[in-house]
Amino acid sequence: MKIAALAGGTGAAKLLRGLARLVDPGDLTIIGNTGDDLDLWGLHVSPDLDTVCYTLAGIVDAIKGWGLGDESFHALDAMQRFGEPTWFNLGDRDLATHLHRTGLLRQGRTLTQVTASVAAGLGVAQRVLPMSNQPVRTGVLGPDGWLDFQEYFVREKAQIAVRAVRYEGAESARPAPGVVEAILEARAVIVCPSNPITSVGPILAVPGIARALGESRATALAISPIVGGEAVSGPAGRLMAACGLPVSAVGVAQVYAPWLDTIVLDQRDAGLAAELAALGVSAVTTDTLMTSPEKEIALARRILDALR
Amino acid sequence: MKIAALAGGTGAAKLLRGLARLVDPGDLTIIGNTGDDLDLWGLHVSPDLDTVCYTLAGIVDAIKGWGLGDESFHALDAMQRFGEPTWFNLGDRDLATHLHRTGLLRQGRTLTQVTASVAAGLGVAQRVLPMSNQPVRTGVLGPDGWLDFQEYFVREKAQIAVRAVRYEGAESARPAPGVVEAILEARAVIVCPSNPITSVGPILAVPGIARALGESRATALAISPIVGGEAVSGPAGRLMAACGLPVSAVGVAQVYAPWLDTIVLDQRDAGLAAELAALGVSAVTTDTLMTSPEKEIALARRILDALR
Repeated sequence: MKIAALAGGTGAAKLLRGLARLVDPGDLTIIGNTGDDLDLWGLHVSPDLDTVCYTLAGIVDAIKGWGLGDESFHALDAMQRFGEPTWFNLGDRDLATHLHRTGLLRQGRTLTQVTASVAAGLGVAQRVLPMSNQPVRTGVLGPDGWLDFQEYFVREKAQIAVRAVRYEGAESARPAPGVVEAILEARAVIVCPSNPITSVGPILAVPGIARALGESRATALAISPIVGGEAVSGPAGRLMAACGLPVSAVGVAQVYAPWLDTIVLDQRDAGLAAELAALGVSAVTTDTLMTSPEKEIALARRILDALR
Repeated sequence: MKIAALAGGTGAAKLLRGLARLVDPGDLTIIGNTGDDLDLWGLHVSPDLDTVCYTLAGIVDAIKGWGLGDESFHALDAMQRFGEPTWFNLGDRDLATHLHRTGLLRQGRTLTQVTASVAAGLGVAQRVLPMSNQPVRTGVLGPDGWLDFQEYFVREKAQIAVRAVRYEGAESARPAPGVVEAILEARAVIVCPSNPITSVGPILAVPGIARALGESRATALAISPIVGGEAVSGPAGRLMAACGLPVSAVGVAQVYAPWLDTIVLDQRDAGLAAELAALGVSAVTTDTLMTSPEKEIALARRILDALR
């Protein structure tokens, strides 16, 4: 079964790690968010793509869910001497990825090509695509003006009030090669349990991707990252509220409603099924908390069962 | 006493560390070789300037004489995954210097400004100037064609025959701001015990620098890096021979003859004094092997005595 997965960072990566145990690598195309990308120390950093690749490669930091395990931060420490920004935690081994990416981009390669090179270097067998080769930058309007997503999320620790979210550059971005094709050719589109506003939102903001989702004959299934009225991790709840959405699987389904068939939600949210049905979305309830590798695989299996 | 010092890497750095103990920091301007600079992983690396700065900052690797002490190489290891070149040993803490330098250069700063920022960040009080802000690349003609200096020195471990040396870009390079002024205002010019072909040679190849040395009223004093017919370290001997020079303090003095007043040579080479006198260069003999911090200071003191 050919699957196209829309993916953010840590939550998506866990589900993909579960799916990877059950699905032929050649059948899984991952379309990753690049709205969180940033330029730091002159390096192009793609946090979500890297989290997915590191997780699928089995080298992610198991506790944090991002970055590399057994990592050191000596370069970061040394950057302080020069007054360089040190609020974004780039590890020493992680730096190699960003140096490789930035070098290839400077040589004129596309982010698609670079991401394939990174994935190959790490031994990731699945196809990992950036959503676009043009820059899209998710911005968050805080009390003092617009911040890039990572400034909001990492530097400000998501502790400031959010008034609006934008996807800068999205209007003139194009889907990366293979993205629309993967959606149209898939038998299933899986929207990973990622933040609908700042992880999946940027992907949908690239003109052509939402249309492809509408045109595709694939069954579209999303996993709600909101459980019991709160995000499993990160600021998804607050960002959804800031965008006027209910902080629940219903709010998630509203974002994807035009093309969504099924939403997988946690069993404790089973009471939302009627509301979801009103949106034309069927609900599948299960334990969605991926607190162990076994639970990642169990959730993936439940999803594949629902899709069959 | 205002001093301008022409400097290569490790040998120069040791002498400068000795001088720094005896000379007011404001009186010492170091003019560093950039002919060995390289572009690696998209980073601008200036090995000689960094060796000088790391040594003066007291953070150089005491055994190797270059790079940082207590260094790790995790990024380098990780670069292998991506098929990136790993023959040049960039450490994790060292990477911060190159990232900072490269970032500032990309923002349009000159290497002069960047070097001042690196030195300040490391707490180096002396003025460290690159010889030029334009690229000069020392090339070595081996059996299979031209190599950049670091390819010859590090990748090939200086184990190939050398037929010629060139300073690419030197013709159109200009002395960096402050270089000619420092030479003209100095009471003494010290040519550090560096390779005359590939460390000092590139500095002299920048049009205007040799002329300033000729015009300056400063006493020009060089320390021979050749002791007992061999270089104290590195391939200076072989490169001098390849350029048709005697591998001795006489060969060193021949390179600097147009403007050199005094050469400091090791006591075991005292027999060369007559030959040096014939070149119009007075000889000062002493123990020139800087095998301890005390001996660095002793050599520096001997030099300052000779200059007074």
